[in-house]
Amino acid sequence: MATEFTLDPRLAGNSRAIGDLPLAHLRLVDNLAFPWVLLIPRRAAIREIHELTPTDQSHLIAEASHVAAGMQAAFKADKMNVAALGNAVPQLHVHVIARWAGDICWPGPIWAGHEERPLSACQWAARESHIRAIFDAWR
Amino acid sequence: MATEFTLDPRLAGNSRAIGDLPLAHLRLVDNLAFPWVLLIPRRAAIREIHELTPTDQSHLIAEASHVAAGMQAAFKADKMNVAALGNAVPQLHVHVIARWAGDICWPGPIWAGHEERPLSACQWAARESHIRAIFDAWR
Repeated sequence: MATEFTLDPRLAGNSRAIGDLPLAHLRLVDNLAFPWVLLIPRRAAIREIHELTPTDQSHLIAEASHVAAGMQAAFKADKMNVAALGNAVPQLHVHVIARWAGDICWPGPIWAGHEERPLSACQWAARESHIRAIFDAWR
Repeated sequence: MATEFTLDPRLAGNSRAIGDLPLAHLRLVDNLAFPWVLLIPRRAAIREIHELTPTDQSHLIAEASHVAAGMQAAFKADKMNVAALGNAVPQLHVHVIARWAGDICWPGPIWAGHEERPLSACQWAARESHIRAIFDAWR
């Protein structure tokens, strides 16, 4: 069993690092359709939320809530989706996704298959600036 | 704005009450393919996890983790899916779903559309007994 946290390369593949919150590594997913981040608790060999200690569980939901609240405001989202699935990549990661009524997957989940278009450099810069502001606002 | 918690009838429609944890009302969904429960925080007019107080957030993740750990053991699940989506029914509710590698939606999410078969009375009784044992084990 791994004793140190190492990021699964499949999570790194279509996302870029924003920074480390007290518990979770925060990454922005390169997806045009949705403002979408991942929070990956920096704990080794954890697949499920319930494998975290109670203290880490509280930190995780606090960090995810901080990010979700910031994203809902920044992107004027109608609904936030917060989910730990991990069927494809079991390393524990929490998706936080801004949804708008009428977006290309609405009201379905975003994982049901849609054409995944990446952001242009300009679009990336705009979106990243919002996420970095939310990250920097962590108290 | 509502001042008292009332369950959205759309959440009640295909599920039945198991009981009340300290924060969340627990319901078992009538779906043959997946052991699937809902945790609905008994707070009025809440749509997002980040609208809960920090204390309620900690209670929610503790209760969801208790249920998820119990379900993973009881149903020998390969992976638990824990998600707050709410695009169709915005009242905050957390799905906790037991997944097996090779189940009918694997590795996709369960909301992507599958034939939703209800449980027979006998199947319901068996599944409910597991969920009630998990509920009763709340310390």
